[in-house]
Amino acid sequence: MSFSLRNPYSIYYLTAMKTKSFLLCLLLAISANAQIVYHDASAFPLLGKATETTLTRYERLPDSLRNISRKPLWELGRNSAGLAVRFRSNSTRIAAKWEVLLNRNMNHMTPTGIKGLDLYCLQDGKWLFAGSGRPQGKVNEATIVKDMLPKEREYLLFLSLYDGVTSLSIGIDSLSQISGPATELPVRKKPVVFYGTSILQGGCASRSGMAHTNILERWLNRECINLGFSGNALLDLEIAHVMAGVDASVFVLDFVPNASVEQIKERAGAFYSIIRSKHPDTPVLFVEEPIFTHSRFNRTVAREVKDKNETLQAVFRSLKKRGEKNIYLLSSEDIIGHDGEATVDGVHFTDLGFMRYAKVLYPVLKKRMKD
Amino acid sequence: MSFSLRNPYSIYYLTAMKTKSFLLCLLLAISANAQIVYHDASAFPLLGKATETTLTRYERLPDSLRNISRKPLWELGRNSAGLAVRFRSNSTRIAAKWEVLLNRNMNHMTPTGIKGLDLYCLQDGKWLFAGSGRPQGKVNEATIVKDMLPKEREYLLFLSLYDGVTSLSIGIDSLSQISGPATELPVRKKPVVFYGTSILQGGCASRSGMAHTNILERWLNRECINLGFSGNALLDLEIAHVMAGVDASVFVLDFVPNASVEQIKERAGAFYSIIRSKHPDTPVLFVEEPIFTHSRFNRTVAREVKDKNETLQAVFRSLKKRGEKNIYLLSSEDIIGHDGEATVDGVHFTDLGFMRYAKVLYPVLKKRMKD
Repeated sequence: MSFSLRNPYSIYYLTAMKTKSFLLCLLLAISANAQIVYHDASAFPLLGKATETTLTRYERLPDSLRNISRKPLWELGRNSAGLAVRFRSNSTRIAAKWEVLLNRNMNHMTPTGIKGLDLYCLQDGKWLFAGSGRPQGKVNEATIVKDMLPKEREYLLFLSLYDGVTSLSIGIDSLSQISGPATELPVRKKPVVFYGTSILQGGCASRSGMAHTNILERWLNRECINLGFSGNALLDLEIAHVMAGVDASVFVLDFVPNASVEQIKERAGAFYSIIRSKHPDTPVLFVEEPIFTHSRFNRTVAREVKDKNETLQAVFRSLKKRGEKNIYLLSSEDIIGHDGEATVDGVHFTDLGFMRYAKVLYPVLKKRMKD
Repeated sequence: MSFSLRNPYSIYYLTAMKTKSFLLCLLLAISANAQIVYHDASAFPLLGKATETTLTRYERLPDSLRNISRKPLWELGRNSAGLAVRFRSNSTRIAAKWEVLLNRNMNHMTPTGIKGLDLYCLQDGKWLFAGSGRPQGKVNEATIVKDMLPKEREYLLFLSLYDGVTSLSIGIDSLSQISGPATELPVRKKPVVFYGTSILQGGCASRSGMAHTNILERWLNRECINLGFSGNALLDLEIAHVMAGVDASVFVLDFVPNASVEQIKERAGAFYSIIRSKHPDTPVLFVEEPIFTHSRFNRTVAREVKDKNETLQAVFRSLKKRGEKNIYLLSSEDIIGHDGEATVDGVHFTDLGFMRYAKVLYPVLKKRMKD
């Protein structure tokens, strides 16, 4: 790996910027001929972790929970949802080599969302989509973006949502540099911590950047931590302890689609109290179950959504009654719009659903983030 | 197959509607126990075909082109993009059995979009998503929606976008009925005919109903014909002849992402003239290439988009100059928004992109559809 600043390319770059269009052709020609050199991503900051991990860098739950948590929950902790590598480079192209843990396939989600990569670039304070790394299988290599002007850019590379990443290298032109970020954007102090279901884990975004926690990380320019566990947001109390370990700006509890009425009654209060005992003043946002788009037709689903949301509302009222402060309840009414088009299967959000959900959450979080 | 109206269920249904909630429980219990009976979909109207086909019902190009068209183009004609089966039923659940031609997989599109089914139901004149048929492989069976009240509903079942459908049966409760539609919605007179690329074919909608031609079919309540051929909208003139065979309300020509500058110069005028010679007054809408979201970074793509759109504009001006009437040019500027988030890979639209594109096209088509 090389972080050398002695590369003559940078001097050349500064001089030649004056004759921009000539340079464009020349440098694109050079870059096309230049080799890609890969740099292990472990040297660069990793966003989105609630806790240190030991097995691999790109997982979400500590090894200490391996024999404590239910097996499916702990295994899902190895999916890299919400994790993102932060770096900068002046390369005309960004490539990646990565290996995934499971090489999972699902019939309602793209392989790019399940086990691909997704690159954003900072321009004028905003994160813009630059390209996605489309996977081939367990071992992957992809050029994510190419033919750029060779200027220094800040990047955020979102990792796979529904698979683990066991190794990751970032490829750049051999004559360019890569290094850690020059600015701390997204801000890493006081992240937003989300707990939830398959939807929260990013099912079924087309690419990882479109999971709503990743959209919100860009829009808020604040680190977001994704503790979404597909089918397994059953209010396991050890996850509340993991969350309580983070000095968060807001805690978002979005577990209703998975937890049963009984589980919500039994454990939601206890789950909340574990977080609250460590963070007496931090806002905690409870989120109702979305009005699943097929609940217009499926009466069983409609009744379940109603029952579970009424249960959550009752829990919320009792917390209020006992004098809890800084707790909020997000109604599901507008979460994914009213046209029924926001999901792939009635339940799991598409990019359209995630965009709508992010738009609903953004002002709520913005208002509650005191610092 | 049975279209019997003698089924005692329908009498029972009419009487019992008066005690609705009791009925709900009872009928859901009955339906849960009832067997699913499958009915071959060939008995029901099929929307979205420009021409008769002979090999299978669910394809888009006539057998006569098999030895005339380029092989990849003809093969893509066997993908069932834009085709939809129209029926009604009072079943509490709708299931399907279907077999696909290729069992294709792509890493940037869901299997549900590639080779699944997508069901919409008419309510108060609007088509609402009811459920998707998620595929398992070449031979598929899925319950698409269940636990409904047993009332008569009108359905529109969109077929696979990127695979062929070689057989299709619709499953209903054994005690219920299925038949052809009671109303001609979407209206089948004077359909809108679209010609285009992979994007037009529906790449990469999460489910087939989210391809923009299918969204527009619902919003306009007018049959739409999808002649999208992934990577192969190269202005092959036999496709213009197929289009000219349809008494359309509007022809949409959306080929720029595939055709080269040379092909546009050489053939766009001829392609147009074949349609125009048969339909002297029908509006023809030319569509510019979308500003692909990664063209902010990729200078080669940015230049290509600019060059191709300038070429299309020049063709359009020359048609105007020679006195052609009822031709329109849609600027690509607002097609997929300006946040860069509408695609999975910079090029192919997600449901978010298709929804945005449909919103741009809807008023344009609405204005041009005279009848």
